[in-house]
Amino acid sequence: MKVNTLEELFVVELSDTYSAEKQMTLALPKMAKAATDKKLAQGFLNHLKETQDQILRIEKVVKVTGIKLKRNKCEAMEGLVTEGKEAIEEIEKGPVLDVALIAAAQKVEHYEIASYGTLVELARQLGWDEAADILFETLKEEKATDKKLTDLAEGGINEQAVMAA
Amino acid sequence: MKVNTLEELFVVELSDTYSAEKQMTLALPKMAKAATDKKLAQGFLNHLKETQDQILRIEKVVKVTGIKLKRNKCEAMEGLVTEGKEAIEEIEKGPVLDVALIAAAQKVEHYEIASYGTLVELARQLGWDEAADILFETLKEEKATDKKLTDLAEGGINEQAVMAA
Repeated sequence: MKVNTLEELFVVELSDTYSAEKQMTLALPKMAKAATDKKLAQGFLNHLKETQDQILRIEKVVKVTGIKLKRNKCEAMEGLVTEGKEAIEEIEKGPVLDVALIAAAQKVEHYEIASYGTLVELARQLGWDEAADILFETLKEEKATDKKLTDLAEGGINEQAVMAA
Repeated sequence: MKVNTLEELFVVELSDTYSAEKQMTLALPKMAKAATDKKLAQGFLNHLKETQDQILRIEKVVKVTGIKLKRNKCEAMEGLVTEGKEAIEEIEKGPVLDVALIAAAQKVEHYEIASYGTLVELARQLGWDEAADILFETLKEEKATDKKLTDLAEGGINEQAVMAA
């Protein structure tokens, strides 16, 4: 896969993000199941629904730009998902695991914030304004999810985890 | 490695971040060498120096808290570094590679923003205010680095890459 132009770079980045989102649809139900706090578990399920919509948005971007996605597996997301999996294996179910799940999810959100930030900017540079607008919707959602996770952590889960110590 | 308390979770997260920073000290010189834009190359070298200071800060946190780091390799950062390496291999040196390097670096920065955000919050919950203050310094630096990368991208590198297409 040789990349010489900004358009080819956009394709690589979008394919990567598509793979990342697909991986997240498999990880989120496990995270929801592992969570003890009801709002957190529900938050993961809500984000699963959002992630499915984000995948549809990427498919829409493919349509409006006429590009073709590559089948590469996003290795960074693979590492991120592995970290979440390890937390579930190594920590007993309860408030400390909830804190670890939030930490893992926020790393994922930040990864996606960086990815969509790049994609929006590349799309604008390429003159693909409709694609940029679609991707910007997802960027806003990822930022909102990160904020919700912080609110959940600070809204009681962190404190419960201290008590558990 | 069983984790039952918030303190043990802090140790795991800090060990992970320590490994991530060490990996970055190996990746940044290669990114600087691969960059065409002089300001970008210099930016990577500046961030190398910052990263070395951030490693010293983690060592200081270890000292003031009396914890012991674990020797685990951060898999998420491994994936992130691999993506940067692939960009260098697959893209010819020039403005398109510069854009790809900025994208890769911003994913790393966002990963670290999430990591240090969690670490600061965990340290506060554990009553380790000195450690929290030290880690907060790094959090501010990582956010500033992300901003600088955006400024470089929007300050001309992205446009040059469009011309290269």
